[in-house]
Amino acid sequence: MTSPARVLAAEATGTALLVATVVGSGIMASRLSVDTGLMLLANAAATAAALYVLIAVFGPISGAQFNPAVTLALRREAGMSLPFAVAVIAAQLSGGVCGTWAAHAMHDLPLAQVATTIRTGPGQWLAEVVATATLIGAIVLARSAGRDAAAIVALWIGAAYWFTASTSFANPAVTLARTLTDTFAGIRPWDAPAFIIAQAVGAVIGLAGARALAPDAPR
Amino acid sequence: MTSPARVLAAEATGTALLVATVVGSGIMASRLSVDTGLMLLANAAATAAALYVLIAVFGPISGAQFNPAVTLALRREAGMSLPFAVAVIAAQLSGGVCGTWAAHAMHDLPLAQVATTIRTGPGQWLAEVVATATLIGAIVLARSAGRDAAAIVALWIGAAYWFTASTSFANPAVTLARTLTDTFAGIRPWDAPAFIIAQAVGAVIGLAGARALAPDAPR
Amino acid sequence: MTSPARVLAAEATGTALLVATVVGSGIMASRLSVDTGLMLLANAAATAAALYVLIAVFGPISGAQFNPAVTLALRREAGMSLPFAVAVIAAQLSGGVCGTWAAHAMHDLPLAQVATTIRTGPGQWLAEVVATATLIGAIVLARSAGRDAAAIVALWIGAAYWFTASTSFANPAVTLARTLTDTFAGIRPWDAPAFIIAQAVGAVIGLAGARALAPDAPR
Amino acid sequence: MTSPARVLAAEATGTALLVATVVGSGIMASRLSVDTGLMLLANAAATAAALYVLIAVFGPISGAQFNPAVTLALRREAGMSLPFAVAVIAAQLSGGVCGTWAAHAMHDLPLAQVATTIRTGPGQWLAEVVATATLIGAIVLARSAGRDAAAIVALWIGAAYWFTASTSFANPAVTLARTLTDTFAGIRPWDAPAFIIAQAVGAVIGLAGARALAPDAPR
Repeated sequence: MTSPARVLAAEATGTALLVATVVGSGIMASRLSVDTGLMLLANAAATAAALYVLIAVFGPISGAQFNPAVTLALRREAGMSLPFAVAVIAAQLSGGVCGTWAAHAMHDLPLAQVATTIRTGPGQWLAEVVATATLIGAIVLARSAGRDAAAIVALWIGAAYWFTASTSFANPAVTLARTLTDTFAGIRPWDAPAFIIAQAVGAVIGLAGARALAPDAPR
Repeated sequence: MTSPARVLAAEATGTALLVATVVGSGIMASRLSVDTGLMLLANAAATAAALYVLIAVFGPISGAQFNPAVTLALRREAGMSLPFAVAVIAAQLSGGVCGTWAAHAMHDLPLAQVATTIRTGPGQWLAEVVATATLIGAIVLARSAGRDAAAIVALWIGAAYWFTASTSFANPAVTLARTLTDTFAGIRPWDAPAFIIAQAVGAVIGLAGARALAPDAPR
Repeated sequence: MTSPARVLAAEATGTALLVATVVGSGIMASRLSVDTGLMLLANAAATAAALYVLIAVFGPISGAQFNPAVTLALRREAGMSLPFAVAVIAAQLSGGVCGTWAAHAMHDLPLAQVATTIRTGPGQWLAEVVATATLIGAIVLARSAGRDAAAIVALWIGAAYWFTASTSFANPAVTLARTLTDTFAGIRPWDAPAFIIAQAVGAVIGLAGARALAPDAPR
Repeated sequence: MTSPARVLAAEATGTALLVATVVGSGIMASRLSVDTGLMLLANAAATAAALYVLIAVFGPISGAQFNPAVTLALRREAGMSLPFAVAVIAAQLSGGVCGTWAAHAMHDLPLAQVATTIRTGPGQWLAEVVATATLIGAIVLARSAGRDAAAIVALWIGAAYWFTASTSFANPAVTLARTLTDTFAGIRPWDAPAFIIAQAVGAVIGLAGARALAPDAPR
C-alpha cells in the first residue's frame, strides 16, 4: 500500500505535468504554426502521449486519476474515504495550477494570467457532458474488460479533442488550471462553472451507463 | 453471457460514438484548418483512436461490430440467429443516426440535415469494395493469428482513410448516418446505395479470401 | 505448416496492399493538401499503420516479408529453399505491381503509367543503404529480443520516411512497383536499379551488423 | 551477459541512429513544409517512433540508454563501474556526432557544420531541467511499474517536444551532436553548456523525485 503522502504527491505531480502538457503544447503550437487545425493536432497528440505515460507510471502509486470527476466517481470502488478524496482533489487542483505556471515559466510568459477565450453555449456544455460521460464510461468498461487504462484514456481523450465541440476538457482540475492562462488552451473564468457542472452531469451519466452495460464491473 | 438487451445497447452506443467521432471531428477539422489534407488527417486519426477504444471496451459485451457488414459476415461464426442479427443491425443503424445528431448538437448545427457531398463513380465503388474486403479479411485473419482486433481494425481504417479513394466508409450503418450530415463527412443519399452494394460485395470477397488464406480460422 | 500456395498468395496480397497504401495515400495526400510536408506525413502514417496490420495478420501465414531483400536475408534462417524463395519474390514483385494498378483504379487514374520523378544521387543511394540496413537489422534484433516485428517494422519505416533523404523505399518489390506510377510516390525506372543495388548492399550490412551485435539471434 | 564491446557498439549505433533521426527528419521537414508547426510535428513523430524501435531492439544488448544523463543516473542500479560508464558515454558522444554527419551525407549537405540557431534564456534552461527530470523520473517509475521503457520514453519525448519551450533535448550526447548541424535541429555551440548543466540538474531532481514516489524502485 502506498502511503497517503505519496498518493497526494503523485496526484499533484501528475496533474501538474498533464496541465503543463496541455497548456505548453498549445503555446508552442500557436507560436509555430499558422493553421489552427495543426495547432489542435499537436495539442491533442502531445496530450494523449503524455496521458499514456503519466497514467502508466503513476497508476501503481495513486491510481493516476488527475481528475476530480474520476476521483469522485470511483471513490467507493477504490475504498477511499471522503476526507481523503477531498485531499486528493485539493492535490489535483493545486497541481493543475502549478502546471499552468510551469508552462508559462518555460515559455517566458508572465506566470499570473487570466484567460479571455470564450467557451460557452449549449453545444459546448453538451460536449462536456458527452466527453466526461464517455471518459468515465471508458474507464469503468476498460477495467471490466481487463484493458490497460493508460492506452484507453489516452486514445479516447485524443479522439475527444476532435469530435466534441469543446475539445474535451472533461476534468474540473484541468478546467480550473486553464482559466489561468491567456493562451491557446485558456477558458474565461466565468465560463468554467458551467463546464464543471456539465462534467459532473456527464460523470453521473457515464458511471450509470457503464454499470448498466457491464453489471460485473467493480464498484 | 451478456443479455440480449445489453448487446443491443452496446452496439447502438458504440456505433453512435463511432459516427459522432467521424462526423464531429470532420466538422471541427474543417472549421479550424485551411488545408483539406490536414482535415482528413485529423478525421482519420480521431476515428482510429476512437475505434480502438470502442472495440476494446465494448468487445466483451457485444463483440463490438458496429457494422452490419461485419455482423452478417461473422454471424454464423458467432452463433447468432438471423432474427437477432437483424435486431443488432437495427441497433447499429439507429445508433449511427443518433451519432450524427449528437455531433450536430455539440457543434451548434441544425440536427436534421441531408448531405450534398457527391461521392460516386467506379473508382469510389471499387474503393469501397477494397476497403470492406480488407476490413473483413483483417478481422478474420487477426482472430486466426490471435491478434487484438481493436488495434488491427483501428490502424487498418486509419490507413484506408488515405489509400482508398472513398476515405473508406466500409460500413453500411456509418454510410447511412453520413447521408444525414451536410458537413465534411457527408455523402449524398442517392450515392449511398451504390456504396452499400460495394460494401456487401467487398464483405463476401474478404470473407472468402481470408478463409482461403487461413483455413483454420474460426467460422 | 502453411501450404506453399497460401504462402505465395499471402506474400502477393500483402505486398499488393502495402504498395496500394504507399501509392494510394500519396495520391490522396497530394490531391487534398497544399503542403508537401503534410503529404509526406499522411503518406508515412498510412504506410506505417498498414504495415503493422499486414505483418500482424499475414505473419503466421507467410512470415509477412513483402520484400525480396528481407526474403533473401532471412532465407536460410527460415529454412526456405532457393527455388521457393525465387517463387516468393516473384509473388512479391507481381503483387506490388498489382498494388500500384489497384491504387490507380481506385483513384480514377490510367492504370498503366511510368514514373517521371527523379530520385538519384549519392545522398539518395546512401539513404537506401541506411534504410535497408537498419530495417534488416531491426528485424533480426527484434526477433532476438522477442519483440513484435509488426510494431518494430511499422514504426521504423514511419521514422525512416523522414530521416532518410529517399523517404526509405528499402524494398526492391516496392521500388519496382513505384516505377509504374507517375504520382507522389513514383520513381523514374532508370533510377530504380541504383536504389535496388543500394538496398542489396544495405541488406548485407544490416544482417552482418545485427548478427555481430546479437550473436544468439536465430540464423 | 553481453560483452563490453557489444555494449559499446550498441550504444554508439543507437545514439547515431537517434541523432540521425532527429537531424535528418528536421532537414526533410524544413525542406518539404512551409509551416514550422508541421516541421516540429514530423520531427517529433519520427523521433518518437525511432526511439521506440531503438530502445526495443538495443535494450537487451546494452540497456539502450543513448544518453549520458541516463547512464550516470542509473549507473549504480545497473552495477556499472565508473570507468565503463565513461566508455559508454564516449561511445554515445561519438555515435551522436556520426549520426549528425550521416544525416548530412544522406541529405547532400556539407558534413562539417556549426549550428547558428540560438537556444538560450531562463525559459529554455528551465525547460531542459523539466524535460530531463521527467524523462529520468519516467524511466525509473516505468521500471518500478513493470512498464515497457520503449513505449514510455518514446511517448514522453514525443510529448515533451511540444510542451517544453526547448523541444526537449534532455540528452547531453544529442545536444553535442546538434551543435554540429546548421539545420532545423541545430543549437549554437555556446548555448550547449547551459543546456547540459540544466540536464544534469534535471537528472538529479528526477532521480530523487522518482525514488521518493516509488521507494521500492530498483536502485
